[in-house]
Amino acid sequence: MLVISSPSGGGKTTICQALLDMGAPFEFSVSATTRPPRPDEIDGVSYHFISDDEFSKMIEHDEFAEWAAVHGHRYGTPKRFVERALETGKIMIFEIDVQGAMKLKTAYPDDTASIFIMPPSLDEIKKRLGKRGTNSEADIRLRLKNARAEIARAKEFDYIVINNRIENAIEDTLAIAKTEMLAAHRFNDLNGFNGFGITILPSK
Amino acid sequence: MLVISSPSGGGKTTICQALLDMGAPFEFSVSATTRPPRPDEIDGVSYHFISDDEFSKMIEHDEFAEWAAVHGHRYGTPKRFVERALETGKIMIFEIDVQGAMKLKTAYPDDTASIFIMPPSLDEIKKRLGKRGTNSEADIRLRLKNARAEIARAKEFDYIVINNRIENAIEDTLAIAKTEMLAAHRFNDLNGFNGFGITILPSK
Repeated sequence: MLVISSPSGGGKTTICQALLDMGAPFEFSVSATTRPPRPDEIDGVSYHFISDDEFSKMIEHDEFAEWAAVHGHRYGTPKRFVERALETGKIMIFEIDVQGAMKLKTAYPDDTASIFIMPPSLDEIKKRLGKRGTNSEADIRLRLKNARAEIARAKEFDYIVINNRIENAIEDTLAIAKTEMLAAHRFNDLNGFNGFGITILPSK
Repeated sequence: MLVISSPSGGGKTTICQALLDMGAPFEFSVSATTRPPRPDEIDGVSYHFISDDEFSKMIEHDEFAEWAAVHGHRYGTPKRFVERALETGKIMIFEIDVQGAMKLKTAYPDDTASIFIMPPSLDEIKKRLGKRGTNSEADIRLRLKNARAEIARAKEFDYIVINNRIENAIEDTLAIAKTEMLAAHRFNDLNGFNGFGITILPSK
């Protein structure tokens, strides 16, 4: 599981979209949220947009690997994406908030690599949030306040990618994803190596 | 410390040379050996080519972080490259044999990332060793025998890079090196982040 997180406006969605566009061998976890969709967001792709009642029911039925309230809305990672990652051995991308990322990391320490996307500055976050046009003044203030607290937790992640130039940030993130795929524990036992060609394969 | 290893003929030298050519922010550890130089090898760059007596003296003076006898010659990693890596925080590349790689990994578990370069087949190793023109029939037989034993240890490494196509193997190795540089522990504490621009820097 590749867990990618950043403060709101930090650039995590742009980076994850770039990975998706590359057709790289990734799958994406789709979080559930009670937040209303932004104009360019598609239900079932960006998020599963569900009601407060539906969210509460999913909690009741223990369907979340983690969930958290962020900026007044709830966000949760459905357990089935975690199970799919563990069962298939595929690299599953989780684009989630800092609280959720740290919960996943704590719950699955051996199966997660976590990346904090570091915005170049709070001013830049402010600019990006303003551009969205969907955030009120009060909402932007709240997100900035939270950004400070989230940045303070950056070192709890495995990796920090500085999003100063988006192309570099994408390249860095891709290098981390590729490295995860080269981890020795992902390879089957090597007894199959018989001198007539490689028969080792990723173990799942 | 990025420790890169492969059986003889596995391609580690070609890959390390490619990293060096890229002018990437790496430094290279230069091992000492009692093996005579090959035609294209330069003393002090490829290896420090020293006599058996000199090698023994370095052992006596405790100047090696690790040393091993491989294919009838001795190879050792001078301690000062390890110390330099730990002191400067630079990514130091150690191109060493499997025994030596595992000794370094055991001695510095928190400060090494180890990569096993997996040759595509034993036949391919045989072909490459033959091409060198500097190996006798008996020498090639010995190296092939050792290759089998070394491949069996591949999973003790952190990463496995399959050297089927050299360009891919270089790209994979570079991704691992880059990922190492993005590790969160390499960043200074984030108190410097003040909202007016990133002030965090790699910690050394």
